[in-house]
Formats: sequence, structure tokens, C-alpha cells
Amino acid sequence: YTKEKTKRKKKAIDRISLPLCNQVVVFGGTHGNELSGIWLVRKWQTGLPLKSETCKVTSHLTNPEAIKLCRRYKDCDINRQFLDEKLTGKPDAKEPYEVQRAREIYSTFSDTSRKRLILDMHNTTANMGLCLIVEKESDLFALHMCRYIQNAFPKDYCRVMLQGQSYGDIRYIVKHGIAIEVGPQPHGVLRSDIADVQEKAVKLSLEFVDLFNKGHQFGSCEISAWTLKGKVDFPRDEKRNIEGMIHRDIQDQDWKPISGTTNIFQALNGQNLTLADVLKNEYDAGSEVYPLFINEASYYEKDLAFWLSTKSVIMLPAL
Amino acid sequence: YTKEKTKRKKKAIDRISLPLCNQVVVFGGTHGNELSGIWLVRKWQTGLPLKSETCKVTSHLTNPEAIKLCRRYKDCDINRQFLDEKLTGKPDAKEPYEVQRAREIYSTFSDTSRKRLILDMHNTTANMGLCLIVEKESDLFALHMCRYIQNAFPKDYCRVMLQGQSYGDIRYIVKHGIAIEVGPQPHGVLRSDIADVQEKAVKLSLEFVDLFNKGHQFGSCEISAWTLKGKVDFPRDEKRNIEGMIHRDIQDQDWKPISGTTNIFQALNGQNLTLADVLKNEYDAGSEVYPLFINEASYYEKDLAFWLSTKSVIMLPAL
Repeated sequence: YTKEKTKRKKKAIDRISLPLCNQVVVFGGTHGNELSGIWLVRKWQTGLPLKSETCKVTSHLTNPEAIKLCRRYKDCDINRQFLDEKLTGKPDAKEPYEVQRAREIYSTFSDTSRKRLILDMHNTTANMGLCLIVEKESDLFALHMCRYIQNAFPKDYCRVMLQGQSYGDIRYIVKHGIAIEVGPQPHGVLRSDIADVQEKAVKLSLEFVDLFNKGHQFGSCEISAWTLKGKVDFPRDEKRNIEGMIHRDIQDQDWKPISGTTNIFQALNGQNLTLADVLKNEYDAGSEVYPLFINEASYYEKDLAFWLSTKSVIMLPAL
Repeated sequence: YTKEKTKRKKKAIDRISLPLCNQVVVFGGTHGNELSGIWLVRKWQTGLPLKSETCKVTSHLTNPEAIKLCRRYKDCDINRQFLDEKLTGKPDAKEPYEVQRAREIYSTFSDTSRKRLILDMHNTTANMGLCLIVEKESDLFALHMCRYIQNAFPKDYCRVMLQGQSYGDIRYIVKHGIAIEVGPQPHGVLRSDIADVQEKAVKLSLEFVDLFNKGHQFGSCEISAWTLKGKVDFPRDEKRNIEGMIHRDIQDQDWKPISGTTNIFQALNGQNLTLADVLKNEYDAGSEVYPLFINEASYYEKDLAFWLSTKSVIMLPAL
């Protein structure tokens, strides 16, 4: 019975068909200290433009004030402001800079015709390699694009993360979007190796869009994806100072499975804390979990030492 | 004649004799986003104290306000404020926080008896490994200590940099001081491998002091040192935006020699710039130079892509 059901289900979505993509909008500098996206936008705007054969491509700096300061944000993280309640509220002169800027971007780029694609460039201090972030498993267009990008990189260098929900990211304002997150790179530093990977990923996205618009058929395939399930915070004292640092056993080990007995923190007193120690009653011994964005600098203030995710394989119908 | 002179000179300083060291003061958080020193001070202050058999050891957070902000500084870099003209000027309620804090530290720790040692802990985003910074070639006590620390690490992991002059660093207020600079570590991130190296270097310093105070004799020896000679800034446009990023040929290649034909920047237009292109008339083709602190995040605002240094071998008389 199960087999039959799967078969019917697979047949029902044997091939999906989507509108052509008529504009790709690439954003850099959504966080003002993540320098590879900022560098690339300036490169593409000063003489070496990004091109596509089949659609309009533009690139933009998301947060100019944060870029000037070389900080993640001026008043608040712009990538938490793209939510209906914030975008459609009454403008107020006293509202944070990033809320104003999010409205501006929303009014220019939001897309009810579902024909735009947003690529949002980010960097992380974590050893994530090239990480393509898609909101939902149902965004098959984005997932096929991820598969296409992945194939051009060495095995296990490029991975897909499913966010599971929108946190008010800039991609919220269009139907299809991916964040292109490359690391490790210290914030406030521009590394040529990281910028090269970032640029290659964007160009592969445009190649994919051109092929798609020209009617190329992308066969059905499987893709591994890591879905965010929860946060793990550092151990902290009453003043929020951290009392444990990321343990050497997991530093730089993003995407690798850990279990309850894995050491995740080394405390001020020298003791090791395991995942089960930290999660206590919430710990589910049966599940295999994968830490992501381990030791990302900007997450210290967000009460976040790393994300926990689960891994799954998604069947993509042909496109 | 030269040989004779050298021989006499060597003999004259066959063994140096210095006062015992009766206090070691260790500072962390001189820059508020360099987390390994901050972590260690908190560790030593909350139950696992630093110890020496022969002298008093204390550890302190240099810049509490910058630490709270997790930024290099609040108003200005404290490590440029320890200069007589600033420390002895008339206090002014409107002066920057770091100037006030420097006065406080100066009044507590400055040392005319020459019996104190300051260890100042730093991190860099550059691939410097363990770098021990000494102000002057004439600080033989500090250089012997460097040699002692160096011997406990793998070859070429721990190196000595001569600053050549004081920039108003915290070590300015005592006779002997070294900065213990460990990288690469992104600012705002605490890596256990980097913290472990930092702690090991501090403990080796205390071991050295104990041996010295107990009358241990340190034989004459040679030590390689890199002396700062000048700065190289990024190529910039009229708004000070950088127009060239550190070239992949030198990224992470701190301490390695480069020549006039070495590519040092990759420009926005894709072209490579060599060292001779950038230094133009100042370039001295005959000299071998070594870039240090390549792509250090906090140097972008200081118009500094890396330091140029020369390498020399220093003969240390016995101590």
C-alpha cells in the first residue's frame, strides 16, 4: 500500500512547471561587516557587470549605513525586518534605520508576479563552506538551482540548509530566493578565496536561470538538506557572560553528526559539557543531529552557540 | 678589524644581569573583541588562578567598556594612549573613555623600580600563529623569555616581532613587556585552540620568570626577529573604499618573504598589483621584506593592509 501511494504521489509531481524568471536581484551588504558580497556588488557596478542572456540582473547594497560602520547593522538586524507587520505598519520618523531601509527595498522589489529571484550574499565565521539557504522544502525552483550550483563544486563543499520558516529575511519579499552564505571568513575581513566562491555561486545561479528560461529540462533528482530544528546557547553566568567555549571536538565540524555524548563546550572551570548535559530533558537520544553555524561571531548576542539541524533527502521532481 | 671589534663587543656583554622580577601583570581585553585574553582573565579570576612560585601574579581586563560592546574600543584604541603626553596631561571630563582608563592603569601599574613585567594578550585575524611582540632589540630579558616560549612550540609556530618604537601600548608603562598575539581568530569569536595557545604562552612566561628569579642561567643564543619597517595600505578610491583585496598569493602567508614581483592585491577590475606596483619609487629591489598581520580586520580603518618587516638574527648574551 505504501509503495503504491508513493508511486502515485511521485507520478503526480512527475514534472513541475513554473513561470519564467524575468529578473534576478542580487543583494550584498545585508550585514555591513560581511565583506565579500559588498566587494562583488562594487565590482559588478564599476565596470564588470553581471550578465544574463534571458533576464534583467541588478545588484544592490542592502544596508549602506551598516556598511559605512563595518558592523552587522546600525540599529537592528535588517534581516529580521522583512515581515508584513513591519513592512506595512505606519512609517514613523523614530523607527530604526533598518526598518526604513527594509520598506524602501520592499517597495522597489516585492514581487506579486512571482517572476523575480533574489540572491542574498552572506558570510559567516563558521566553517560552513558554501551554504545555500532556502526557506521551504516546497521551493522546488530554488532547490533545483541549489543542485545545479552544487554540481560545480567539489563533493561536500556546497550544502543546502532549509530554514523551515521566515525570520523576516530579505528573500521574504519574493517567491523564490536563496541566501548564499560562505565561510569561514572573519567579519570585517575580505578574503579572495571566499569572494571567488561567492562570485562563482552567483554566476552559476544566473546560468541556471538562463537554462531554465530557455526551456532546458532539469531531471528529477535527490538532494540532501539540513533543516533547522533548534538553538543551543552557550552556558552563561547571571550577567550573560559565557562560561563555556565551543569545545575543540566540534569547532569547525559544521555539517557533521553529533550525539548526546559529544563534548560541545569547555567550561571556565575546565570541565567538558556534552550535548546531553546541555539539552537535559529536551535531549532525544534517538535522533541524529547536526550542528550548523558553530561559533558564528554575530550569534553570541543572539544567545546562540550553534543551530541544531536534522538531515533529510528530498526527491526533486523534474523541472 | 671588524672581527676584533665584534669579539670585544661580544665579550663585553658576555652575561647580563638584571633585577629580579617581583610582579607579573597580565592584561586581557585591551581590545574588547579579542576574546581569548578576556576568557583567560575570567578563567584565572574565577577559581583557577595563575600562579608563580617567586612573584606576585595578577590578571586584569584592560578595557571593560569595549568588552561589553564586543568592539576593539569604545572611543579610541587604548593601545595608542599610553604615552607620556597623554598620561600626564590634565584630566578632562570630556576626554575619551580609553584615555581615562589608560591613566587609571598607569597610576596603578607604572613601575620605576623596573621589577614588573607586563604580558598583554591579543588576537589577530591574520595567520600569524603565536607572535611575541617586543618593543626594542635591547630588551634582552624579554627576548630571552621569547626564546624560552618558542622552544616549547613546534618549529616556526612562535615568532618574535620587534616593534621598533612604542605606539603607546600598555607595555609602555613598564621596563619589560611582551604582547602575546595569537591568530588566526575572527574578532568576536573565541576559539579553544587559540585560547589554549594563549594560555600556554602565558604559563611559559611565568615558568621563565620563576627560573630567572631562582637564579637559573640562560645561555647565550641566537633568535630570529622581524622588525617593522613600514605600512602598505589597500588601493582605495576617493571615498576610501578599498579597490583591491589581498591577493590569494599572500593571504595567510605571514612571515614569508616577498619580492617586487609578488602579487599583493587583486583589484576590482580583476587586475593584479605587485609589491613594486604599489610601492613605486619607494620600492628597494635589493631588500628582502616580509609581510606581517596580512588582512587584519582592525587595520582596514588604520589604512593598513599589512606591515612590511625585515628579518634579522639577534645574538643574545647569557642571562
